[in-house]
Amino acid sequence: MITSTQNPRVKDLVRLRERRHRDRSRLFAIEGYRELGRALQAGIDIRQLYACPSLYLGSNEPALVEAIAGSGAEVVELSEAPFRKVSYRDRPEGLLAVAGQFDTGIARLDLSGEPLVLVVESIEKPGNLGTMLRTADAAGCRAVIVCEPTTDPFNPNVVRASLGTLFTVPLAVAGTRQTIDVLSAAGMATVATTPDAPRAIYDVDLTASTALVVGSEQYGLSDAWLQQASTTARIPMAGSADSLNAAMAAGVVLFEAVRQRQATGNRQQATGRNVDRRPS
Amino acid sequence: MITSTQNPRVKDLVRLRERRHRDRSRLFAIEGYRELGRALQAGIDIRQLYACPSLYLGSNEPALVEAIAGSGAEVVELSEAPFRKVSYRDRPEGLLAVAGQFDTGIARLDLSGEPLVLVVESIEKPGNLGTMLRTADAAGCRAVIVCEPTTDPFNPNVVRASLGTLFTVPLAVAGTRQTIDVLSAAGMATVATTPDAPRAIYDVDLTASTALVVGSEQYGLSDAWLQQASTTARIPMAGSADSLNAAMAAGVVLFEAVRQRQATGNRQQATGRNVDRRPS
Repeated sequence: MITSTQNPRVKDLVRLRERRHRDRSRLFAIEGYRELGRALQAGIDIRQLYACPSLYLGSNEPALVEAIAGSGAEVVELSEAPFRKVSYRDRPEGLLAVAGQFDTGIARLDLSGEPLVLVVESIEKPGNLGTMLRTADAAGCRAVIVCEPTTDPFNPNVVRASLGTLFTVPLAVAGTRQTIDVLSAAGMATVATTPDAPRAIYDVDLTASTALVVGSEQYGLSDAWLQQASTTARIPMAGSADSLNAAMAAGVVLFEAVRQRQATGNRQQATGRNVDRRPS
Repeated sequence: MITSTQNPRVKDLVRLRERRHRDRSRLFAIEGYRELGRALQAGIDIRQLYACPSLYLGSNEPALVEAIAGSGAEVVELSEAPFRKVSYRDRPEGLLAVAGQFDTGIARLDLSGEPLVLVVESIEKPGNLGTMLRTADAAGCRAVIVCEPTTDPFNPNVVRASLGTLFTVPLAVAGTRQTIDVLSAAGMATVATTPDAPRAIYDVDLTASTALVVGSEQYGLSDAWLQQASTTARIPMAGSADSLNAAMAAGVVLFEAVRQRQATGNRQQATGRNVDRRPS
């Protein structure tokens, strides 16, 4: 049991907040009961689990700890002081793990059939990226492709805002050029969302194999997407706000696709997702 | 010019972060160029404007300061140290005002015609409430009604996440009982969104006079709403996440109403909003 906030392991955990330490170690942190449950279920390579039983909120935690230990992770107990130091949260729940980063190569995505895919470009805020993953999961997306990321998907705030759906929705990170090539080779229609588009999203057919493309909070989509997408579409705006939040815009277009697909009987099934989640 | 972080005015400004000080003084803080521009335009009662020119991001700030001064506000210059102390932001933009709280009584809402109204119950997170206001504004809602608030709409994080749409969308705060009575008297259909509803939101007519009702992040809607709403509706979910974020759920149902209304030609016009914004 670790009781000192100066323990080297505690210091290593704190360092995982910084991207360069994540990039170098190819590790990342997963905090929280729900998030860890999803990570375990998705076969994420959990290496160490740090547990602080006095902070548990419920009574299910010991079973999850046992299951994670059974998957081969080392379990280390922390007292409250060091746990509070390593936690990313104001009210820690007593569970934080270190896991190996998984492969985010675009080549491993299965784009066969008539999938719905969300593509997001240059998203800056981890909270937005996490919310987009959660929403893409709820909408039954086959995959989320993060283009030209300014936010690392292994950022702890992405894990958190995604509620662990980072582990359930197949995720790829790629350049815009490569993404356009891969989607084109897969025969997918790409729909670039932009406020200047002549057509409303409601007037674009989203029922076939479709990638919905959403741009950054501040700058929208790059010219590459605006010029090379199969079509553009806008969300009709009535109000005085400059635009919707980027994650909200993604949600509105994703659920328009869900509506159209339910109407035509092409409903995405979560079971249609088969993707290699072995550690990279 | 105030240069000390110990100045009594600086202390008063910091106190406005706490709800009891806002409630007692009937004041609140508005920070940021865009937010203050919207407040000025909406006729919000701005009493004092604190400006720190060395923090301005652009060149339009002096014109806004002059306009706010012209509306009768006292303008006080702050040096960087006290401004950073009073700012709610990591990267302050050099503009922060104190304003009188406006009337949020439900009786002042104009519910005539066929408005689209968003009702939210017991929302806990200021960021969610602010995002809901921004989204309701983008969707052309006639009003947002906040039922049984656990978050004070004058919380600085509501102002911020709303991007100042707190001042453009007519807002009321009321109990659930009173809200049901008022909407019923106005002849509005109330659509309670809940994951257990038999009908999908896409199969409910939202084109007439409609209030969309969304519940809290953790507990959803109260029994009062579930039992007394005209109908219930769910957002179809495909994924493994427990549910959408509360603000996202509001956005999805609001833009479904926008879609239906565009299809039938009942488009909400922002100009349809006439509401008394005089100070309370």
